[in-house]
Amino acid sequence: MAKTNKGPTESRLTFGRRLREERQKRGMTLEDLAEASGITWSYIAQVEVGRRNVGVDNMHVLAQGVGLTLRDLL
Amino acid sequence: MAKTNKGPTESRLTFGRRLREERQKRGMTLEDLAEASGITWSYIAQVEVGRRNVGVDNMHVLAQGVGLTLRDLL
Repeated sequence: MAKTNKGPTESRLTFGRRLREERQKRGMTLEDLAEASGITWSYIAQVEVGRRNVGVDNMHVLAQGVGLTLRDLL
Repeated sequence: MAKTNKGPTESRLTFGRRLREERQKRGMTLEDLAEASGITWSYIAQVEVGRRNVGVDNMHVLAQGVGLTLRDLL
């Protein structure tokens, strides 16, 4: 049941692509978003390519980091 | 950075409440949703009260279990 971090699933990729899109739209680097969110840039980079089964808490924090609600990021 | 399962955060509660609302709207029990999603009812019960930092993979599966996309569930 609890999914591990095996690789990109469609749901991870959907979230990761949207995050990257909104980050780049704002001219933010991974480092900028790391600073805005308190999440390391290396973790964010993995989220963006679907390598992490990111939890709802961090999804919310990342959405806020690009100035959106989680709903608007999805 | 990686959040543990300490307790209800606002983002967990928002997701959990929406999930419960949509499940009950469809007259589904926790057992029904467990069967539809392949996730145990006890885990779903904890998600609904914000006790789990549910990952994007399971959020997607739970949304599908009530017939919605993840975006529509948020």
